[in-house]
Amino acid sequence: MKALVYHGPGQKSWEEKPKPVLQHPTDAIVKIYKTTICGTDLHILKGDVATVTDGRILGHEGVGIIEETGTSVSNFKKGDHVLISCITSCGKCVYCRKGMYSHCEDGGWILGNMIDGTQAEYVRIPHADTSLYLVPQGMDEEALVMLSDILPTGFECGVLNGQVKPGDTIAIVGAGPVGLAALLTAQFYSPANIIMIDPDESRLAVAKKFGATHLINNASSNATNSINQLTNGVGVDVAIEAVGIPATFGLCQEIIAPGGRIANVGVHGKSAEIHLETLWSKNITITTRLVDTVTTSMLLKTVQSAKLKPEQLITHRFKLSEIMAAYDTFSHAAESKSLKVIMSNE
Amino acid sequence: MKALVYHGPGQKSWEEKPKPVLQHPTDAIVKIYKTTICGTDLHILKGDVATVTDGRILGHEGVGIIEETGTSVSNFKKGDHVLISCITSCGKCVYCRKGMYSHCEDGGWILGNMIDGTQAEYVRIPHADTSLYLVPQGMDEEALVMLSDILPTGFECGVLNGQVKPGDTIAIVGAGPVGLAALLTAQFYSPANIIMIDPDESRLAVAKKFGATHLINNASSNATNSINQLTNGVGVDVAIEAVGIPATFGLCQEIIAPGGRIANVGVHGKSAEIHLETLWSKNITITTRLVDTVTTSMLLKTVQSAKLKPEQLITHRFKLSEIMAAYDTFSHAAESKSLKVIMSNE
Amino acid sequence: MKALVYHGPGQKSWEEKPKPVLQHPTDAIVKIYKTTICGTDLHILKGDVATVTDGRILGHEGVGIIEETGTSVSNFKKGDHVLISCITSCGKCVYCRKGMYSHCEDGGWILGNMIDGTQAEYVRIPHADTSLYLVPQGMDEEALVMLSDILPTGFECGVLNGQVKPGDTIAIVGAGPVGLAALLTAQFYSPANIIMIDPDESRLAVAKKFGATHLINNASSNATNSINQLTNGVGVDVAIEAVGIPATFGLCQEIIAPGGRIANVGVHGKSAEIHLETLWSKNITITTRLVDTVTTSMLLKTVQSAKLKPEQLITHRFKLSEIMAAYDTFSHAAESKSLKVIMSNE
Amino acid sequence: MKALVYHGPGQKSWEEKPKPVLQHPTDAIVKIYKTTICGTDLHILKGDVATVTDGRILGHEGVGIIEETGTSVSNFKKGDHVLISCITSCGKCVYCRKGMYSHCEDGGWILGNMIDGTQAEYVRIPHADTSLYLVPQGMDEEALVMLSDILPTGFECGVLNGQVKPGDTIAIVGAGPVGLAALLTAQFYSPANIIMIDPDESRLAVAKKFGATHLINNASSNATNSINQLTNGVGVDVAIEAVGIPATFGLCQEIIAPGGRIANVGVHGKSAEIHLETLWSKNITITTRLVDTVTTSMLLKTVQSAKLKPEQLITHRFKLSEIMAAYDTFSHAAESKSLKVIMSNE
Repeated sequence: MKALVYHGPGQKSWEEKPKPVLQHPTDAIVKIYKTTICGTDLHILKGDVATVTDGRILGHEGVGIIEETGTSVSNFKKGDHVLISCITSCGKCVYCRKGMYSHCEDGGWILGNMIDGTQAEYVRIPHADTSLYLVPQGMDEEALVMLSDILPTGFECGVLNGQVKPGDTIAIVGAGPVGLAALLTAQFYSPANIIMIDPDESRLAVAKKFGATHLINNASSNATNSINQLTNGVGVDVAIEAVGIPATFGLCQEIIAPGGRIANVGVHGKSAEIHLETLWSKNITITTRLVDTVTTSMLLKTVQSAKLKPEQLITHRFKLSEIMAAYDTFSHAAESKSLKVIMSNE
Repeated sequence: MKALVYHGPGQKSWEEKPKPVLQHPTDAIVKIYKTTICGTDLHILKGDVATVTDGRILGHEGVGIIEETGTSVSNFKKGDHVLISCITSCGKCVYCRKGMYSHCEDGGWILGNMIDGTQAEYVRIPHADTSLYLVPQGMDEEALVMLSDILPTGFECGVLNGQVKPGDTIAIVGAGPVGLAALLTAQFYSPANIIMIDPDESRLAVAKKFGATHLINNASSNATNSINQLTNGVGVDVAIEAVGIPATFGLCQEIIAPGGRIANVGVHGKSAEIHLETLWSKNITITTRLVDTVTTSMLLKTVQSAKLKPEQLITHRFKLSEIMAAYDTFSHAAESKSLKVIMSNE
Repeated sequence: MKALVYHGPGQKSWEEKPKPVLQHPTDAIVKIYKTTICGTDLHILKGDVATVTDGRILGHEGVGIIEETGTSVSNFKKGDHVLISCITSCGKCVYCRKGMYSHCEDGGWILGNMIDGTQAEYVRIPHADTSLYLVPQGMDEEALVMLSDILPTGFECGVLNGQVKPGDTIAIVGAGPVGLAALLTAQFYSPANIIMIDPDESRLAVAKKFGATHLINNASSNATNSINQLTNGVGVDVAIEAVGIPATFGLCQEIIAPGGRIANVGVHGKSAEIHLETLWSKNITITTRLVDTVTTSMLLKTVQSAKLKPEQLITHRFKLSEIMAAYDTFSHAAESKSLKVIMSNE
Repeated sequence: MKALVYHGPGQKSWEEKPKPVLQHPTDAIVKIYKTTICGTDLHILKGDVATVTDGRILGHEGVGIIEETGTSVSNFKKGDHVLISCITSCGKCVYCRKGMYSHCEDGGWILGNMIDGTQAEYVRIPHADTSLYLVPQGMDEEALVMLSDILPTGFECGVLNGQVKPGDTIAIVGAGPVGLAALLTAQFYSPANIIMIDPDESRLAVAKKFGATHLINNASSNATNSINQLTNGVGVDVAIEAVGIPATFGLCQEIIAPGGRIANVGVHGKSAEIHLETLWSKNITITTRLVDTVTTSMLLKTVQSAKLKPEQLITHRFKLSEIMAAYDTFSHAAESKSLKVIMSNE
């Protein structure tokens, strides 16, 4: 079969690889139908993720069709259309039993990382029963690719950890795909004001369309001052960090109201400063989280009932065989105005 | 009347001051019966707390007897024995209505700070109805002084924010009075292991007596290594920071388990480093809080039922007129082995 | 002034009464601007509420303008436009400190019940600081009358107690004004399916317009069967009882899914049967509640941000002097198709 | 092997049965080391549990030693000492993923009910990885038999659902083994007062020894009156129903304070009356639950740290081969003063 293979920093190719086979009775082999590229894939290609080695097939998102199942798999059968979770969960370790699938002792984020991933014609999914989700009849499967990673990430790490409530004023720092996923899912809880902060005007325009009530361009203005004005100097109830650098984490600390929650979503490469000299008495909560995908079933229901429209995040479409071009488009997001690109294996 | 008055950094005196009078219909005048000294009072005397100005009577803890009440005070009458909360709460601002009394728009921590405090023969208590608590008949009033500040601080900022649960392994960094208060109140929730970390052997010995299951001297050993051994490399479910310096906040980050909570109690004078490069994916929660004293009624019940024995924290006793000696004892805690000193106005 | 006065079962009149005066320093006198009639007022007129005695001015909802304030009132001043809460809260008793204003030891539901109410040109509001809410500039004050009682009741007793979550399937039994208030506010949490159950087709039609996704007429069909079909025999995650009779409480028990919540909102006049022989193992939660109006500030924000449009509930408008006609309209809801009637004192 | 076999109402025998064999790759065969008898077993023998048919081996509690594991079992190996949960959990259905193992689509309470149970020399445990718990080295295995059912039942259905908090006043109605299990585990949360209500003086004496602070004999006195006196007419914060009849459920309604929680633990055979005419406005919560055994790991930690001493519940010991005598003792609890009887297969 064909697959997108990592060959060290800066090196990838669309090449022939052996079709995966069942290794454990809990495995399933899934024929990829739709997949996408994540910002994390770009990090891997820069050589930032040490666990990814030469020869690895990338990708941790997608929908597909069950090709074959191990003898212990009971939730799925050949022909089932399934959503692939970016997180593999064994369902029986201490972390899985607590709903912390991201820390599964025999799983977590391994697809396209420790084991071969979804940017291929076929993929082996370990612990299939607890890592795949049946696609309900008649749903837009392309849209569901957004539920592999980006939407649960924005929702769990940003919205749930931020405890967004009706009437809240929230700020989302970073209008990339994950920040926009937080924006879409924050609206499940009817906050009064959603302030989107980003240096890119076209992404802010998208945020406006997606439901942001206020936009702040933090390249051309001082975001802290703007938020002080908007909130009469009180600050925001929830600040969602969706960038992953010290400056934006610092901004969240500046704008948080007493009693507020800072929910970190961004992947950070270095440490940041925490201003305990002012925050110690401010009754705030800071959370971090790698997505657990515990809300995938809930999100599926919100898509079915049209409370959530994930297809809004898709800007470009390619054939799976055009994946090199898709990477090019996605990695030049500012020029291509791409959010999420879909590749179809049809 | 006599009072302990601040006269700028390093300067205090026990001197004659006018007896306080009612200023608002919600005020009460309380005759001090028992009071104590807080670590914060020592900070003030170093000149670290800018809001405290020359001439201020210090102190924010104590029990006393109602001398006079304003026309709007309905919960108390002359002669009632009352516990004075270190936090003044108006009961009607947006923060008080949310239970965040520490941020009360007409209160918060003001006693011995913005207004005259409790290290005096009499004190004026604003918003008396919502800032005083009736002492139940027959209770040890000396012990209750511990409920003015130190026990709700350890409990709310450390134990409640840390979400201590039955079976948890918790670490408390700092065995000073507030750390010990966290230790005492953590046991309300039956954690399996309570690891106390401090560089002072005599304080660790006290911690042992108060219920700590493991002791780590972080002057003579590497606390992170010790905890890794104790927890099979997993870390602790809850880390309570009760010191207030970057090093101990850093230690909490090193020892926290995935899914764990770091509850900051310490008063910090400068910023610290937060290792988001490792924590971002660790599903942890960090909280800060100035005590709200929302749990004072609950704590009173636990004292009444002997689940909590606050008198254990008292090591020295003085007459109120001996307050200069009491300060001397308290400020040389290492030598005097003092925890809390009680001064009686009898 | 003129007021609507209760004179025993079946007897009411619009008559001259003395204008109220301040009795306590915490009182405010409010000139009524808009008021309405509650289903409870009809119960009172039937003689069902023993605490209401001959001579009482009815009414516990409204917006008005501060005419005069007692010496302790600090949140409001003459001329302020205010929303009157149906629940009076002293802010300082043990219940108020826990957010259970409905059980306030010097308040609770007393307006138009234990003391004179809002269906008059003026009303005295005890504990004004904690029982009134400032009307934000530029808001539709007529719409805000819905926030005195009906919307917090549907929201707190139905939606919050029912723990409505994104993706949930919920049923609301009873499409009267309070059931519709639950319907409107349930949508804050983006449930996937909202099933409205009522025997009146015109009320069901209103429910459809207000966001119900499924309608069941339980006069012409078997609601339990219909819900079994809709939910594949599983039942609903949340059942909100908004009628107040044994039959509808029984229906909630029939349709609740394992792990579900039954939130009682209805005012019951007699006991009901609880089927513990089947429910004991079903992991369900049943809640009861008299509205506390703790969410009034939150609801005001949702109105300001147009997430909630309370004006939808208003069907008829009268002058305050036409209140006898308003009662006639409201008490013949089936024919008049009235939901809430507004009376203006201009 | 030998086993205790049900042969219809009133009929049981200790007889030869085939040793169980693996049926699914997720099964384990466990050699029973210690087992016990549950009140439910007596109900079965009366013919009250329709799902139990002639020929069924009874029993759903025990500890044992792994004899053989299916090919998919990865958490356990031959020779491991294991605690058997009364609830079988597949770990991958929608209920298991929510922590509602009691409603597992391929499990729940099936041992000694739908499939053969633990009152035998060997038992087949389906879904072994998620239904067994490794016994930590050096623990008292006899004591752990109490963690199969009775302690998680008292804890989850009574204490957790009742939301027992430090300082609370709680009442437990019924001092049988499950009520006593609630009593022991309620103390994890340091309630101020624990009132035990039972008609049997000897069980009340046990309750006293186990930590009850007040005893009420509801055969010889009016429990409602007694509680009104104890609580100044306010009632209890939490009422735990551990009997299972309408009268005791009714008592819980009479004694519950505003804002309180009634946690039903008892197995009810018929419906009860719920006094909504008074409760509707009382802000109470009623819960039902079949134990999920989600807290088994937590309980193991509390036993290891000696916060919980389950061995207190054991009153009688037999050899497994003496099980007929053990049943006789257990079923005459009033005379034998038995709580839990242990049978050893050594």
